[in-house]
Amino acid sequence: MVTSVLLTGAAGRVGSAILGGLGQDYDWRLIDREPPTGKDNHQSDHEYVVADITDKDAIREAMEDVDVVIHLAGDPRPEAGWDSVITNNIDGTHTVFEAAIDAGVEKVIFASSNHVVGHYETERKPDIYRTSSDFQLDGTELPRPSNRYGISKATGEIIGRFFHDEYDIGVVCLRIGNLTKDHPPIDYERGQAMWLSYRDCAHLFDCCITSDVDYEIIYGISDNDRKYYSIDRAHEVLGYDPQDNSADYTD
Amino acid sequence: MVTSVLLTGAAGRVGSAILGGLGQDYDWRLIDREPPTGKDNHQSDHEYVVADITDKDAIREAMEDVDVVIHLAGDPRPEAGWDSVITNNIDGTHTVFEAAIDAGVEKVIFASSNHVVGHYETERKPDIYRTSSDFQLDGTELPRPSNRYGISKATGEIIGRFFHDEYDIGVVCLRIGNLTKDHPPIDYERGQAMWLSYRDCAHLFDCCITSDVDYEIIYGISDNDRKYYSIDRAHEVLGYDPQDNSADYTD
Repeated sequence: MVTSVLLTGAAGRVGSAILGGLGQDYDWRLIDREPPTGKDNHQSDHEYVVADITDKDAIREAMEDVDVVIHLAGDPRPEAGWDSVITNNIDGTHTVFEAAIDAGVEKVIFASSNHVVGHYETERKPDIYRTSSDFQLDGTELPRPSNRYGISKATGEIIGRFFHDEYDIGVVCLRIGNLTKDHPPIDYERGQAMWLSYRDCAHLFDCCITSDVDYEIIYGISDNDRKYYSIDRAHEVLGYDPQDNSADYTD
Repeated sequence: MVTSVLLTGAAGRVGSAILGGLGQDYDWRLIDREPPTGKDNHQSDHEYVVADITDKDAIREAMEDVDVVIHLAGDPRPEAGWDSVITNNIDGTHTVFEAAIDAGVEKVIFASSNHVVGHYETERKPDIYRTSSDFQLDGTELPRPSNRYGISKATGEIIGRFFHDEYDIGVVCLRIGNLTKDHPPIDYERGQAMWLSYRDCAHLFDCCITSDVDYEIIYGISDNDRKYYSIDRAHEVLGYDPQDNSADYTD
């Protein structure tokens, strides 16, 4: 039987990367507060629900008969204000997990962010972005968010930890780097260090959907020479085997 | 000049322990949503503001000319529901930190909780509560909250981390154990493991007020034989020197 996947925030960039790579591999239900745009974002041919993440009834309804939830919905702006992130990201993520438990969902893949650990860079940049630096983060470190968006994503990870410990639901928190199509950011060392290509993004989410997991915090980046996020855990637990490296485009 | 300390949630149990021990040592301003009770909780002779933690204007006003904030206010019930903890504990703590920054406060001492790490016990109890167990938590471990109250306190610690990293305000997150007056809990191994006596509580907060700190996560318990929270960091950074041990009362 084909795995049924609910994708929240489906109309965003991460959603497009996922659907572009995996649109034919799973039975998708998409949800976004914006209606489908009809452009090149791979939303056609899938069930599509227009609803905001704050609409608890709609979220609950969309969970029906779902095996896996990929939760991307929320305010994606690093500069987002507190009122927005506490509502859309913190409360919204709690809504998703609670509904997932009630619907018997097996696994939630939560889009966390590099901003959860942004302040590890403060005293180390720009050296941290260079191949000469040995500094690495691996997901066992305590959060040091660089903005309120990062606070909200760190809280989402903790919400996931609670629901895993309490109800044994599988949870993967993906600290997604800098996702860009075609090529890595130009003249932006930080973006090159944490670049995630579209095909590596789709592959990583595919690994998350198919792997047997308990609770994981995973860095989601390509195999960049400049990386300061370890992808060892992604390889070990999920079988993540990235194909791209920002150095192939920029050095 | 005497240090000016704002104490939020002053009418609760932790507030009583603090004021009972330190009432004469600092220039206190108390705030609580309940008016003073006039009973034996040491609220008399101090400035007292009746206001809810959700009243942002009142919180801002109470910060004026304050050196140190001790933030206890919030829903203290481990069984509290999500709507209450996201409002009173998560949003309330963000309000306090934001107001503290704007008022030029030097340090915030945040009442966190043992419930931030409650799920480390799940597979280890009751052995973890016994002197034969070597397992210890020291504050470097990732949160594993055992309830939504614990999620909210873990989030408060992360909010504190952000404001410290961003504005260099001193922050101590105290994961307070089981505070009881006179003697430790009877027939409750967990409570004996994490007992905090009133006088050790007052001494610990005194250490927090007087010490020079950056950002710390500290376990707040007495020196119990049964302890599985390390108090080494409290001793090293704050000079905490507890006088009590639940074993003196119960074994």
